[in-house]
Amino acid sequence: MCELLGMSANVPTDIVFSVTGLIERGGRTGPHRDGWGIAFYEGRGCRLFRDPAPSIDSPVAQFIKHYPIKSRTVISHIRRANRGKVCLENTHPFVRELWGRMWCFAHNGQLKGIKKRGLKFYQPVGTTDSEHAFCWLLDRIREQFPTPPRSAKRLHGYISELGWELDALGVANFLLSDSQSLYAHCSTKMCWITRQAPFGESKLIDSEMQVDFAQETTRKDVVTVVATQPLTDNETWNRMEKSELRLFRLGETWRIR
Amino acid sequence: MCELLGMSANVPTDIVFSVTGLIERGGRTGPHRDGWGIAFYEGRGCRLFRDPAPSIDSPVAQFIKHYPIKSRTVISHIRRANRGKVCLENTHPFVRELWGRMWCFAHNGQLKGIKKRGLKFYQPVGTTDSEHAFCWLLDRIREQFPTPPRSAKRLHGYISELGWELDALGVANFLLSDSQSLYAHCSTKMCWITRQAPFGESKLIDSEMQVDFAQETTRKDVVTVVATQPLTDNETWNRMEKSELRLFRLGETWRIR
Repeated sequence: MCELLGMSANVPTDIVFSVTGLIERGGRTGPHRDGWGIAFYEGRGCRLFRDPAPSIDSPVAQFIKHYPIKSRTVISHIRRANRGKVCLENTHPFVRELWGRMWCFAHNGQLKGIKKRGLKFYQPVGTTDSEHAFCWLLDRIREQFPTPPRSAKRLHGYISELGWELDALGVANFLLSDSQSLYAHCSTKMCWITRQAPFGESKLIDSEMQVDFAQETTRKDVVTVVATQPLTDNETWNRMEKSELRLFRLGETWRIR
Repeated sequence: MCELLGMSANVPTDIVFSVTGLIERGGRTGPHRDGWGIAFYEGRGCRLFRDPAPSIDSPVAQFIKHYPIKSRTVISHIRRANRGKVCLENTHPFVRELWGRMWCFAHNGQLKGIKKRGLKFYQPVGTTDSEHAFCWLLDRIREQFPTPPRSAKRLHGYISELGWELDALGVANFLLSDSQSLYAHCSTKMCWITRQAPFGESKLIDSEMQVDFAQETTRKDVVTVVATQPLTDNETWNRMEKSELRLFRLGETWRIR
């Protein structure tokens, strides 16, 4: 299995605190040693860092921990390989362009038979079922909406349906983003927390680190973090329900189930 | 204008020496302060680092200079903006997937009227004429070859024709790669050098650095570096001709003109 981490915020925010917790699970407090990656959106652009090395030993991860990149939307993943060997092209997140936006995807779970689903526009570069599922998702979205739909709700509803189709094949916990919207689909495990004024202290489970967000933020900031499992032990995380698709945008959230 | 750097090698090779020279031109020995980027292929996967900051001040560039990533195919670019504001989505290299391969593109020059050319499969994320040209190139390749052509020569010939079409719109010095093949098209300025046994010393123009490649390589290594302008002053670089498309693969080279 793998673990996922996402962030949605109304101001460019650094995610060093949460990433520090996640990185520990990539070889020290967790078994996810088969590579890791993180995508930061900056405007419409996307910075993608990936490394097939365990995050706990990765020079790229050390760099990210000490170089606070500010972003409104982030997707990160640590991998424990089931399908597909450990190599760069099998490392999440995956990216593809649709409608002149860079879409980004990371997945936790196995999807039996997904590779039998034919693909049209997008082809996987690596051999994971996850990347195949991403190509299939974007293919379907592109066929349904050759141009971006005006209604965010229609798109949300359609991605929700696609999530249910994936649920039928196995486990489809995934994060998906086009830069502004962050979609989180829960098959089995996913939780989230929104931090806003009055901010307090947060303490990581996997590391000694703690931070007083009141010192790091302004009163207007709204920052939501999504993760496979809670990253802190002194806050209450919201558990997502099975087959729920939640949309996060500028830190706020909506759901379809 | 901008400057380009590419590498093709028959063994995974680090490009720290050449990148060190290029980075200097992004704000110290050259005026290309409007961002920089580098793509390293690793198998079929691609690591892409981009920063809209000048390379000379970029923490990402410092990281790359001290973290020798080994690759057979590399494309790098330092930008001096003509079209499109300075931001991440306008920073080269650009990437898109075609035939299950990640294609990567960096460009030097201006292309008048390129944005009037309609696009079908690929849409730009940013606002540069360069990214539009890349989308147009891949659109045309995809229409001509819905699946990868068996003959590398046919593909080379077709990309060469597309290069001539771009030449007619202005200046189209570009590097393009699908991971194994590195195509270099010259409108006005491009040169290359192949280093192989017996290796000797190389001395950068833009920095005090020099390296004895005999100490760093084996007798079987073949490494070709392509650049807008020579990076060393104690070696003879081959100047490309106008409208020439040169293919580099595993360090070896072929041309069509």
